[in-house]
Amino acid sequence: MPSLDLGVLISGRGSNLQAILDAIAAGRLDARVRLVISNRPGVEGLARAERAGIPTRVLPHQEFTDRDGFDAAAVAALREAGATWVVLAGFMRLLTTTFLDAFPHRVVNIHPSLLPSFPGVDAQQQALDHGVRITGCTVHLVDAGTDTGPILAQAAVPVLEGDDRDALAARILVQEHALLVRALSWLAEGRLQIAPSAAPGGRARATIAGVDTALGFAQGGRAPEPVGEGA
Amino acid sequence: MPSLDLGVLISGRGSNLQAILDAIAAGRLDARVRLVISNRPGVEGLARAERAGIPTRVLPHQEFTDRDGFDAAAVAALREAGATWVVLAGFMRLLTTTFLDAFPHRVVNIHPSLLPSFPGVDAQQQALDHGVRITGCTVHLVDAGTDTGPILAQAAVPVLEGDDRDALAARILVQEHALLVRALSWLAEGRLQIAPSAAPGGRARATIAGVDTALGFAQGGRAPEPVGEGA
Repeated sequence: MPSLDLGVLISGRGSNLQAILDAIAAGRLDARVRLVISNRPGVEGLARAERAGIPTRVLPHQEFTDRDGFDAAAVAALREAGATWVVLAGFMRLLTTTFLDAFPHRVVNIHPSLLPSFPGVDAQQQALDHGVRITGCTVHLVDAGTDTGPILAQAAVPVLEGDDRDALAARILVQEHALLVRALSWLAEGRLQIAPSAAPGGRARATIAGVDTALGFAQGGRAPEPVGEGA
Repeated sequence: MPSLDLGVLISGRGSNLQAILDAIAAGRLDARVRLVISNRPGVEGLARAERAGIPTRVLPHQEFTDRDGFDAAAVAALREAGATWVVLAGFMRLLTTTFLDAFPHRVVNIHPSLLPSFPGVDAQQQALDHGVRITGCTVHLVDAGTDTGPILAQAAVPVLEGDDRDALAARILVQEHALLVRALSWLAEGRLQIAPSAAPGGRARATIAGVDTALGFAQGGRAPEPVGEGA
């Protein structure tokens, strides 16, 4: 039996979903995708799921009177499908406690920045506008805030001279695919440890035992630049 | 003649000052340190300067009735010494426009985080408390805010399992020394370009022409981990 029974929520292209499906097919990730839910009909991610023989559900968010209604329907569908972990793979809506309480510490998001920098929409453009030289991506557990939940793993990506939004987004996306698969494989190995917050009202702390969860900088054919006292 | 005539402001140990002095002595940085100013007497950074034959001034901040008075005295001392660029190397005070307007776009700071994450004091502990897996350091031009000025260069540093504040700070410090020297050498080569903000009230943008200003991840004997679709 696979160690992770995944539900995957998407809103569009689903390239991170494809990375998961490819990793499972290649034996690099001990998991099974039980259901793919999209809040938008007709998106490419649904076609990817169907090609892989994965059940899909479309829950158009505008058909629900409030977020709780959408979230309750999604929870019911995921439970019925046997999903016990949830991955947000380009899912563009906030989740309520109705959803989060149904999968405590088991909802995973991938975000295209080194959080806490650049939460929210279009993190890649935010990074360019700010003029940072290093950005990246973050896999984290989801809480009720916008990209505020406990961090599981991060990968660094350089911003290069002349980058526009699409060039930077493409470079980050390569790392998103790798980081998401890597992080899910650690969860499948049972490495996740949750520690309650040290401070009252603070966030829980998530750690992955026994592995280095900081990745980066070897993508795109660019060798990492040696840095040191003698450089 | 050296290309950069530096004034260096310190508040303590001065290890980044030492990195500058070592790089100049080794011929890796085309600059001269004209004056070292400390706002605290007796600190190790002053002794480092004296050993290198660099003039020093102590301007105890409590002897000035306001920040402007301190800044005006510092500007006068720097000008008298012939400094045309200023490096804040562990200098723990904000500067006013009295100082900044005297050296427009020529005051450089090194900060131990990947800004805009973790500005202000003890960025290393902030990073640990937040649970990030990647942090680093940033060299930027100084404006009137706290670590908000235009970014010149950044280096990434992994947070490793079991790190405490001192272990992480030491790992970042190695990169600070390398990044600061590298950034100053680019300034000495005349590579700095300042672009006004695109948005009204926004920040100026600083770029370093023709070099990759994102460094990182090769320190501490740790080989960068390859990341990619096939990993």
